[in-house]
Amino acid sequence: MNTFDFLENKKLKSQLDFLVEIDKMKNIFRRTVIIDKSRRENDAEHSWHFAMLAMILEEYSSNKVDVTKAIKIALVHDLVEVYAGDTFAYDEKAKQDKRQRELEAADKIFGMLPPEQCAYIRALWDEFEAKETPEAKYANVCDRLQPLMHNYLTDGHTWKEGDVHAPQVLGRMDIIRETAPELWKAVEGMVKISVEQGILKP
Amino acid sequence: MNTFDFLENKKLKSQLDFLVEIDKMKNIFRRTVIIDKSRRENDAEHSWHFAMLAMILEEYSSNKVDVTKAIKIALVHDLVEVYAGDTFAYDEKAKQDKRQRELEAADKIFGMLPPEQCAYIRALWDEFEAKETPEAKYANVCDRLQPLMHNYLTDGHTWKEGDVHAPQVLGRMDIIRETAPELWKAVEGMVKISVEQGILKP
Repeated sequence: MNTFDFLENKKLKSQLDFLVEIDKMKNIFRRTVIIDKSRRENDAEHSWHFAMLAMILEEYSSNKVDVTKAIKIALVHDLVEVYAGDTFAYDEKAKQDKRQRELEAADKIFGMLPPEQCAYIRALWDEFEAKETPEAKYANVCDRLQPLMHNYLTDGHTWKEGDVHAPQVLGRMDIIRETAPELWKAVEGMVKISVEQGILKP
Repeated sequence: MNTFDFLENKKLKSQLDFLVEIDKMKNIFRRTVIIDKSRRENDAEHSWHFAMLAMILEEYSSNKVDVTKAIKIALVHDLVEVYAGDTFAYDEKAKQDKRQRELEAADKIFGMLPPEQCAYIRALWDEFEAKETPEAKYANVCDRLQPLMHNYLTDGHTWKEGDVHAPQVLGRMDIIRETAPELWKAVEGMVKISVEQGILKP
């Protein structure tokens, strides 16, 4: 394959190499299907959709948030999956070594960038993972709401596949209950209807 | 399909309806293939990748830019294609009615949002299309560089399919020559090597 070795500017070369490497996000498939149910969603699409939620739903965060930071978090939050792969949210076994796999992947993928940008994006990812700042909480709200909407609209695709029950879903949405009460009403409504329809186990 | 009709908050309902409608971006396919050449790239993936370029390449813009605005432009710049479809950059015939098709689509897709958000996102799209502000120029730089990199790395896939010649590519990259000289070196190098390899006609 062609390269950017011809560039004299080695900093730019490392940035373009990174931007090529992350194209692999388009082949990391999640459990969730896209809303027309035709196929699974990949990480690049999910990251874009999550960023759009962050852009549109800001007013429902009970904490004041810097929405531009939440959008940047959305864009980079799954980059570690280029090497660590997607871990199903309800797979307790796979989740055991998730953190270790993702930490190693973070060093590798962010390490492709010049030091300052590496530190900047690493900090965004660390902030998201720690779920402590208003922006990290809001980003986690959007990251959880998006696949819930997909499952609600695709006959509970992933719930059925993973034998998931309503209390597990509601538990995973706790951060929405805590920090976005108006969105929590949407969550409760979707879960209630899904259980009534039999697409989510009670 | 399930709906959000159960919500008492009709503003939130309209926002969620919009966020569901734009899922169609995942099924709008571009001419460009993803870098492993396995399939065409869709608009959602492209928008994410473009936003990542915007986040990483800011220092190469000769105008000072508000990178967060450029990122927001990236996220929304192709939303009109949900209804107007993708228009191949080198298809002069299809480009004739592109503007009209996209204007109608803009009214329809942005019009799903509450008035303030509709106006905000419409303004971002208008700014991108007008290519006048530093952010619009920088966003156009990223939007053009991304598929050029893909073609360079995929044996000129789209160039071959569209019988594209080097002067057309360089012409389309004019905004990079004008506003991002260091990236222009990368463009010139990619085009030169591609012509030498016979994957782009001279």
